[in-house]
Amino acid sequence: MIYPKIPLAQTVVQLCKLKGIKHIIISPGSRNAPLTIGFTNDPYFKCYSIVDERCAAFFALGIAQQLQGPTAVVCTSGSALLNYYPAVSEAFYSDIPLVVLSADRPKHLVGIGDGQTINQKYVFKNHILYSANLKLDLKDEKNVPLNEELPIIKNLEDKLERFLGLQKSIQSHNEEEINVAINHALINNGPVHINIPFDEPLYETVNALSVSPEADDVKPKPRAIDDYTLKDCLEYWNASTKKMILVGVNKPNNIEKKWLDELAEDDSVIIFTETTSNLHHKDIFPSIDQIIAPLNAQKEQDLQPDILITFGGLIVSKKIKAILRKNKPKQHWHIDVKKANDTFFCLTKHIETTPNQFFETLLPKITHYVKSDYKDNWASIKQQRLKKHAEYLNTIPFSDFTFFNSVLKSIPNNVILQVSNSSAIRYTQLFNLNKTLEVYCNRGTSGIDGSTSTAIGCAVSNIKQTVFITGDLSFLYDSNALWNNYIPNNFRIIVINNRGGGIFRILPGHKNTENFDTYFETNHHLTAEHLSKMYGFKYETATNVNDLEDCLKTFYKKDKQPKLLEVFTPKAINDEILLNYFEYLK
Amino acid sequence: MIYPKIPLAQTVVQLCKLKGIKHIIISPGSRNAPLTIGFTNDPYFKCYSIVDERCAAFFALGIAQQLQGPTAVVCTSGSALLNYYPAVSEAFYSDIPLVVLSADRPKHLVGIGDGQTINQKYVFKNHILYSANLKLDLKDEKNVPLNEELPIIKNLEDKLERFLGLQKSIQSHNEEEINVAINHALINNGPVHINIPFDEPLYETVNALSVSPEADDVKPKPRAIDDYTLKDCLEYWNASTKKMILVGVNKPNNIEKKWLDELAEDDSVIIFTETTSNLHHKDIFPSIDQIIAPLNAQKEQDLQPDILITFGGLIVSKKIKAILRKNKPKQHWHIDVKKANDTFFCLTKHIETTPNQFFETLLPKITHYVKSDYKDNWASIKQQRLKKHAEYLNTIPFSDFTFFNSVLKSIPNNVILQVSNSSAIRYTQLFNLNKTLEVYCNRGTSGIDGSTSTAIGCAVSNIKQTVFITGDLSFLYDSNALWNNYIPNNFRIIVINNRGGGIFRILPGHKNTENFDTYFETNHHLTAEHLSKMYGFKYETATNVNDLEDCLKTFYKKDKQPKLLEVFTPKAINDEILLNYFEYLK
Repeated sequence: MIYPKIPLAQTVVQLCKLKGIKHIIISPGSRNAPLTIGFTNDPYFKCYSIVDERCAAFFALGIAQQLQGPTAVVCTSGSALLNYYPAVSEAFYSDIPLVVLSADRPKHLVGIGDGQTINQKYVFKNHILYSANLKLDLKDEKNVPLNEELPIIKNLEDKLERFLGLQKSIQSHNEEEINVAINHALINNGPVHINIPFDEPLYETVNALSVSPEADDVKPKPRAIDDYTLKDCLEYWNASTKKMILVGVNKPNNIEKKWLDELAEDDSVIIFTETTSNLHHKDIFPSIDQIIAPLNAQKEQDLQPDILITFGGLIVSKKIKAILRKNKPKQHWHIDVKKANDTFFCLTKHIETTPNQFFETLLPKITHYVKSDYKDNWASIKQQRLKKHAEYLNTIPFSDFTFFNSVLKSIPNNVILQVSNSSAIRYTQLFNLNKTLEVYCNRGTSGIDGSTSTAIGCAVSNIKQTVFITGDLSFLYDSNALWNNYIPNNFRIIVINNRGGGIFRILPGHKNTENFDTYFETNHHLTAEHLSKMYGFKYETATNVNDLEDCLKTFYKKDKQPKLLEVFTPKAINDEILLNYFEYLK
Repeated sequence: MIYPKIPLAQTVVQLCKLKGIKHIIISPGSRNAPLTIGFTNDPYFKCYSIVDERCAAFFALGIAQQLQGPTAVVCTSGSALLNYYPAVSEAFYSDIPLVVLSADRPKHLVGIGDGQTINQKYVFKNHILYSANLKLDLKDEKNVPLNEELPIIKNLEDKLERFLGLQKSIQSHNEEEINVAINHALINNGPVHINIPFDEPLYETVNALSVSPEADDVKPKPRAIDDYTLKDCLEYWNASTKKMILVGVNKPNNIEKKWLDELAEDDSVIIFTETTSNLHHKDIFPSIDQIIAPLNAQKEQDLQPDILITFGGLIVSKKIKAILRKNKPKQHWHIDVKKANDTFFCLTKHIETTPNQFFETLLPKITHYVKSDYKDNWASIKQQRLKKHAEYLNTIPFSDFTFFNSVLKSIPNNVILQVSNSSAIRYTQLFNLNKTLEVYCNRGTSGIDGSTSTAIGCAVSNIKQTVFITGDLSFLYDSNALWNNYIPNNFRIIVINNRGGGIFRILPGHKNTENFDTYFETNHHLTAEHLSKMYGFKYETATNVNDLEDCLKTFYKKDKQPKLLEVFTPKAINDEILLNYFEYLK
């Protein structure tokens, strides 16, 4: 087999292999040639070449999100690395293990005006679990000749021995740093940055490894709940007639069904879920904005729980955040092995375990259900809303709202649905989805910068079909996502094109002025047609509900190329229809 | 006039106006609405709406580069800000005043799981002149109720007075921070970041300003050379028979002609310039790679100067760096008001002044020219090379090399030429350019990430025509640059499409393997045709020298839309032709 000659490159590549990092997304460059040579010549790795590093990192994030394991991106020195930052921050807030491997110039060539050179160390400091700075060798590290380095050692043999010893300690340092960094990604689920200096020559290869680094064992912390916390939780639980469980972004099949069944029996418990929670049960409350958006102040107070239990990632619904911040629960427990956001300014416990472990510990200790009408009351409101929702659909013309109704109904079973920010995911939340779908959205930073790339990363790492729903601005923003040679033919994109950022029409701005059109909604007359042709997507369009539903009949079927359906909706009425919807539900 | 209601937004907008920041590039968002309202309603400002923040920042950089004054970018909270980073680092290393204005959530909403929220403070720490963190108000800053804040004050009036006083001190803090940040951009030429928290409601407006911030005076440091340094310089100067002046990236008309005339009289002085130096004089040495690439070790030693004087930005030529690092001058003086890179590891003086000031102080004190054949020797080599260069062009087929010959000759007088990284600027350096052209290239980080956007920023801020020459990878990377409603009809793009990163064929890699094609050269079959159609460029192509020269005859002429010429060159022979060129020159 062919290996890069540079031992440090061998070390990095070997440790990635030993740690089970299989998917490597490489952006072209010369400084990273030793890594590229190492990864691409070892059949263990599945390598991808993506030129635009912003897309490359979101693509890697999509893969890591699906594999639930670390994925690496590899780039050359200079500003290339900075283009990873949007995806790094998304990974940081979405707890996705993204391993950034950046080639760097040797230390003595940084800060002296060499080309493609920036100050790479700790560059993601605000949003990274760990930054490892590897060392090239003793000479570079100290940046002084060996003689000056070892002034007190006279004897040549001593010098050599000392030199080899120090070199060895640099090798140990590097191995340890790589281990620590990758362990952080593995255990704590998030982005890490390993910065790797290489000196020329960069392209030399050898036929045998000159180093054999060792991967240390990864020991996740035990996550048992201590007795004190358990006792406390039980006391509150048994004394409370209003308990709300609110679930944000959550992986499919993350919660055992038996706990949902058991919780569903309890009249004092309501489970509010977001679409991104991937939780399904006949007795829970999805589409929470549909339920709560029409509430008056009194009804909002009625919703106020004694105990709020949250798990999963960030919450999309602004309304539930507003209600719970105004009507604070007495207790707010967040269950997560890593972190607890005080989203409602009333966090009382961070229970550092998994939701399953929490329910497994708590629920068997509950001896009786508290008498309560909390759940029944809200269940009847839910039923009213569903009826009104169906009625409303019959009264409105073709629009963003009916688009989501038609599209979400049309998606076949067992598809992975990727949704972009921000209107798209908000609309999706208003509809009850097919329970066999898995739903993802980049809610860590809620950016529009990499949704398409993420969806494509998801598509390449699944046999299941991936369908991606996106707004026009999100789609155009991440247009380079399509510059990707790995897109499977069963991948589908549905662009809802309302000629600008529809979200701004819903917000309380100054609509229908030139300033609004230009700087908020950012009107345009672009379509996805040229990009579809450029990147080999079959392109279809619809401008009314009949055409749309016709298109959707065949859209998901097997084809020889990936497909993109662009649906044009009338921007002038979309916002009214949405705002009237919440009125109608009242 | 309409103003945003929030005093902090008024403060930022007013201070930008007072400091003369006129061009404001706004990306859509809700959190930045108060700034958008402020900037777009004041006719003093020239506002632009650009959705992709990566492009927006490079576009702003192009404007600032041309105006030689600060330009501001405005974005919403969250990962939007991170997309500015590639341009921020380019501005940092290229000394371009780019003012980043990021809207942020209030402090109490950061780090608690709110949407579109990241840790924005100091996010560009490694590459920024100054980071100002503005404060919203006392309550947000302390995040405690007023009563707790002022426990010792009993009387209500006292409380109010104290409160107003503290509020005023927050206003003073903000004004001072904005002043300091913008002054850094103005005086020290580089990027600064002002982070601005806003709380809802964001869209409210008023008809009168509620604050009147003051802009402090900007006092640039005097830049005289001290007597001791001058004496030292003079001694070396008079004693040295070999002086080299090497000029990197340098603004047009930055050096007074009389100093060049005077230096040209001195036989002991050679002036080596890069294309990006924008220096022209019959007796200087442009196209330095043409001169030095064929040198053997002995000749390289002959070139070794006693004194090396450098000014301007980063050096493109790898060869001159290698030669001077190997054959170090005894003295290396770098002339720059701000910084001195030790590019050749032998920097002896950082002379903190402008080149004009330096020459004005030094040259009148030179009483006689030192006898030397340094200049004459290299002038005769230059003549030989020019002859060989012309001969070689007659021996080679259509290729990247002949593309640059045809294109560079064709450009009309007084055009601003923007060139992308990396092959494009390297090839451009091998040809003698029309002296009326101004040449720019993003050499701060030498990235391919924003060259098109920078060129478009340049084009919108000039009456002169801007022509942009770019490789295919650079062009595709920054494809969103074309998503821009301000592109003037006289803007021209010439894409040299050799189906991948041609630079990698020149580097010592492992050519013609599948791995090379995929991960280094990153082969593709894309063209600029679809993007041209999508964004309203007239599209032309050429695949041979005759077609190319035909196209070029009319290409620069007035038209009703901007134009893009795509030239396809044969990638299999491009590298050989370039390498043979350096052989041929020997």
